[in-house]
Amino acid sequence: MLSHRLKKTFTRPTRDVAHQIRRFATKPEAIKLDLSPCVRGILTDVQDPDTPIDISGWVSSSRISKNVAFLDIKDGTTYEGIQCVIRPPSLLPSDIKNGTGVQVKGIWSEGKGKQKYEVHVNGTNQGNVDVLGPVDELFPMIKSSHSAQYLRTIPEYRWRDQSLAAILRFRSQVETTLVNFFDSQMFIKTHPPLVTASDCEGAGELFKIESSSKLKNDEQFFGKDAYLTVSTQLHLEVICAALSRVWTLTPCFRAEESDTNRHLSEFWMLEAEIAFVDHVSQLTKFSEKMIKSVVKNLADDHNGMGSNLINTVDKATAQIMIDRWEMLLSKDWDSITYTEAIKIIQDAVDSKLVEFDTRPIWGDSLKSEHEKWLAGKYFKNPVFVTDYPLEEKAFYMKINEKIAEEAGTTVACFDLLVPDIGELIGGSMREHDLQKLKNEIERRGMDTTPLNWYLKLRENGSVPHGGFGMGFERLLQYLSCTENIRDVIPFPRSARNCLC
Amino acid sequence: MLSHRLKKTFTRPTRDVAHQIRRFATKPEAIKLDLSPCVRGILTDVQDPDTPIDISGWVSSSRISKNVAFLDIKDGTTYEGIQCVIRPPSLLPSDIKNGTGVQVKGIWSEGKGKQKYEVHVNGTNQGNVDVLGPVDELFPMIKSSHSAQYLRTIPEYRWRDQSLAAILRFRSQVETTLVNFFDSQMFIKTHPPLVTASDCEGAGELFKIESSSKLKNDEQFFGKDAYLTVSTQLHLEVICAALSRVWTLTPCFRAEESDTNRHLSEFWMLEAEIAFVDHVSQLTKFSEKMIKSVVKNLADDHNGMGSNLINTVDKATAQIMIDRWEMLLSKDWDSITYTEAIKIIQDAVDSKLVEFDTRPIWGDSLKSEHEKWLAGKYFKNPVFVTDYPLEEKAFYMKINEKIAEEAGTTVACFDLLVPDIGELIGGSMREHDLQKLKNEIERRGMDTTPLNWYLKLRENGSVPHGGFGMGFERLLQYLSCTENIRDVIPFPRSARNCLC
Repeated sequence: MLSHRLKKTFTRPTRDVAHQIRRFATKPEAIKLDLSPCVRGILTDVQDPDTPIDISGWVSSSRISKNVAFLDIKDGTTYEGIQCVIRPPSLLPSDIKNGTGVQVKGIWSEGKGKQKYEVHVNGTNQGNVDVLGPVDELFPMIKSSHSAQYLRTIPEYRWRDQSLAAILRFRSQVETTLVNFFDSQMFIKTHPPLVTASDCEGAGELFKIESSSKLKNDEQFFGKDAYLTVSTQLHLEVICAALSRVWTLTPCFRAEESDTNRHLSEFWMLEAEIAFVDHVSQLTKFSEKMIKSVVKNLADDHNGMGSNLINTVDKATAQIMIDRWEMLLSKDWDSITYTEAIKIIQDAVDSKLVEFDTRPIWGDSLKSEHEKWLAGKYFKNPVFVTDYPLEEKAFYMKINEKIAEEAGTTVACFDLLVPDIGELIGGSMREHDLQKLKNEIERRGMDTTPLNWYLKLRENGSVPHGGFGMGFERLLQYLSCTENIRDVIPFPRSARNCLC
Repeated sequence: MLSHRLKKTFTRPTRDVAHQIRRFATKPEAIKLDLSPCVRGILTDVQDPDTPIDISGWVSSSRISKNVAFLDIKDGTTYEGIQCVIRPPSLLPSDIKNGTGVQVKGIWSEGKGKQKYEVHVNGTNQGNVDVLGPVDELFPMIKSSHSAQYLRTIPEYRWRDQSLAAILRFRSQVETTLVNFFDSQMFIKTHPPLVTASDCEGAGELFKIESSSKLKNDEQFFGKDAYLTVSTQLHLEVICAALSRVWTLTPCFRAEESDTNRHLSEFWMLEAEIAFVDHVSQLTKFSEKMIKSVVKNLADDHNGMGSNLINTVDKATAQIMIDRWEMLLSKDWDSITYTEAIKIIQDAVDSKLVEFDTRPIWGDSLKSEHEKWLAGKYFKNPVFVTDYPLEEKAFYMKINEKIAEEAGTTVACFDLLVPDIGELIGGSMREHDLQKLKNEIERRGMDTTPLNWYLKLRENGSVPHGGFGMGFERLLQYLSCTENIRDVIPFPRSARNCLC
C-alpha cells in the first residue's frame, strides 16, 4: 500500500522559471512574521524593564483619575492580566469599556504597587492605546458578573466571562495531561468511527443520520441505516486485538430527553481497552492511576500560568476544590463488590443511619442516591463497586464463574463512584470466549447478525481483555466543582437546545 | 456556578459500619494488580538476564526444527517482537499458527544471534507456552502479506497486519506531537460542537441527524433541523474571541459521493484560530512551524520504539519516506500569490514545459493537477499560495484592499500545496469588520438569519484574527507515504461504505 512511484525524476525547470522562483523568494511581501506574543507569553518569558512592548487583548477593567488612567488587559491565554498605566489619561481613547479590543504600545516597567511589572504609556515614550474593536453600551459582558444560567443564553459571548474561560483552559490542561499519561503507559491513541451501523449496547436513544440530498430521494448514503455512536467500545476492541493498549477521546451521542445538570446529547467520552488483562482489579487500579495523574498535575500547577482554576474563583470555592483534589490523592481507593454494597446500604437503612427513596435488594440497580451516599458519606472517598448482577449489565461482560455463591449471576465489571457525582467510570472484563459470548447473546434474545464482525474477534487470536469508559465532561465537572455539565463544554447540546 | 454546598458535615459511620470498611479494605480480593508489562515496556525497561519473565502477545512467526523451536511474539505496542527459544520443541503446543494469542513463561536471556535478548523456555526452567486464543486454518491473517484492498474488506482483522498497525501507532504519535506543539505555543485545545444548526460554508453535502424515536413521530429532537458539522471554524471563532489561541482536532462530515483515494465522509480535521494576527503570512509561518515540529519529532524518533514506521516498511519505501521528511525540513517554504501561480502555470504551458487538461486563466480555481505540479515539480517543496480571487473563496475571508492592482478582487487567504498530494491546509484572515462582513453576505445573496450569532462576534470587542484547517488524515497520508486515505483511519466511512 505504500507508493513506490513517488520518486519520479521530474523535468528540471528552465532557466527562466528558475529565475522566477528566486524572484518570488526574495521579494519583500514574502517576509514571514511570527505571531505577536500573547499575555501568557509576556508573563512567562519576562523582558528586561525599560524595553518597548506591544500588548493586544481585551480590557478587563479600567480606572481613570485626574492624572492617570489604569487599564487591565487580558487575552484569555492565562487568568492574569497586564496593567497599563497611562499618563496623562487623555491618551486613553474615549470609547474604552470592559471587553473593548485594544492594542497598547508602551514601556515594560517594574511595577510600583501589587504588580511586579506594568506597562507605562505616556506622551514622551510615544506610547498609545489603539481601539481594535469597540463594544456597544448594551454589550452584556461589560458587567463582570452574570449568572451561569443567563450566560448560557448568549453562547456567542459567554466564554468571555473570566470564570468560564478558566474552565476551558482547565479542560485543555486535563486533556493534555491525559494524552501524556496514556503515552507514558504505552497506549496508542486511536479514533473509532462515530458513524456506525450498530448500536453498541442496545441502550440509549440513537440519532439516525442521512445525507440531506438522499433524504429527498428516499435513498441511503451508506446503503443501510446509519447512526451516531453511543460508545466506541466494540470498535475499540477491534483495535485492541491488534495493538494491545488503546484509548480514545471522542464525541458520543445520546438522544435522551432527560434535562438534568449532568446529561448532554453530545459529549466526549474517554474509552480505553487493554489486552492481556486477567482481573477486573487491574482495570480499577489503572483507572485510579489515570485520575490521580490528572489530579497530581493540577495540584502541582497551583501557580501555573495556563489553566489555573484556583486563582479565578473565590477563596471558599478554591478551598473546596483543593480539598477535593487532596482527598482524591490522599490514599488508595477502596473496592467493594456489589453484594457488599447492597449489604452496607441495607444495614445503614435498617439502623436508620440514612433514609433513601428505595431500600435496594440484591438484583436492583444502585440508584444515584445510593451511589452518592456510598462514596460521599460512607467512604468519603472514591470507591469501586465490582461484580454487579448479570441482568443489570451489557451482554459483552465476562460472567463470574469462580465466586462460589454467585457463580453465573454476576459479571466481572466495575463502576467508580465518587462523592457528589456518583458514577464516573464504568468498565468490565469482556467475554473473549466465542461460545460463551454467543450463548449470552442468544439467552438475551438479541440478533447476532449486526454483531457478526464483533464475534469474529473471538474466532481468531482472542485474548483476555477489558476496558472502561468515562464521560470526559463528568470528570471535568467533578474536578472543577462545576454544578452544571453545560458549563464545561463549549456548546452544550441537549433536547430542544442547539442554540448556535 | 461553582457549588458552595459541597462541604456539608456528613454523619460519621457507626462503629459496625466502620469495622466493615476495614474488613473490606484488607480482604485478599481487594488486592490490586498492575498491568503486566507489554512488549514495548519489556524492551524499553530491560531486565537483567537470567530473570524469569512472562510475555503475552500474538505469534508473528514460528520455526520448528528437530531440537529447537523459535517463536516471535508481538503485541502491537511496538514494531519489534521478542524471540522465544523453546527446547525441546515438544514444549510447544501443537496449534501454534501466526496470530495465535499466547502467554510464554521463560527466562530472559542474552541473545545468541541477531537478537540482543531472547526468552529461553525449557523443561528445566519450568517455562511453558500457553495458548490463550487459537486461530482457525481459514484465518486470513495467517498469511503475512495481503493487498491493502483485500484488507479493507476485513475491517475486524486488518489492523493485525504489521504495516497497518504501524500506521495506527504513527497516527497516535503525530497527534501526541501536535498536542504538545500547540501546548508549547500556548494554545488552548477545545471542542466545538459536531451537531450544528448552521452550514459553515454553504459548501459540501451535509448529513442531517434526528433522534430515531422522533423520526417516527415527525418531531424534532433539537426543535429545528440539525446537521453534522463540515467545519468547526465558525464556532472556533467564538472561543478565539475569548481565549485568543485555540485549536481543535475533531471529526467532520461530508456526504460527498466522490469515491477517491483521498476523500472520506467522516474524517478528523485540525483547525486553529488565532486572535491579534494582522497578516496572512503570520498564519503561513505558523502552519509551517507546526508541520515541521511534527516531522522533526518523527525524524528524531528513527530509532524510537513506538510508532516507528521506517522499520516496518521495505528499504526502498523507507528511503522515500526519509527523503520526504528531509525535504520538508530542508528550507523555508516559498510563498507566492495566486496571481503569480497562474502566471507560472501559464508560462509553463505556453513554453510546453508541461501539459495540463486545462490552461487556467485568472479567476479559475487551481485544479489538483496544477497544485501537484506547482509543489511537486516546480518548487519541489511545499509552497504557500496566497490571495486567491474573492469569488473562489468563502464569505468570511478578509478582502484585500491594499494590493493596488487587485483591490477588492482577492482575499487574504492561503492554501498550502505539497508534492504528490496538493492542498494540505487552507486558511485565511477572517473579516472582523461587521459592516464589511454584512455587505459581503448580502452581495452573495446569503441569508443572514442563521449567521446572526456569528455576526454578533463583530459587534463587540472584534479583533483581527485568522486561522486554518488541515485534514488530519491527509497529513498522515502524506507523511506516511500511504496511497489510500482509507488506510490511515481505523474505520473509513464513505458512500455505500460503513462495513462495521
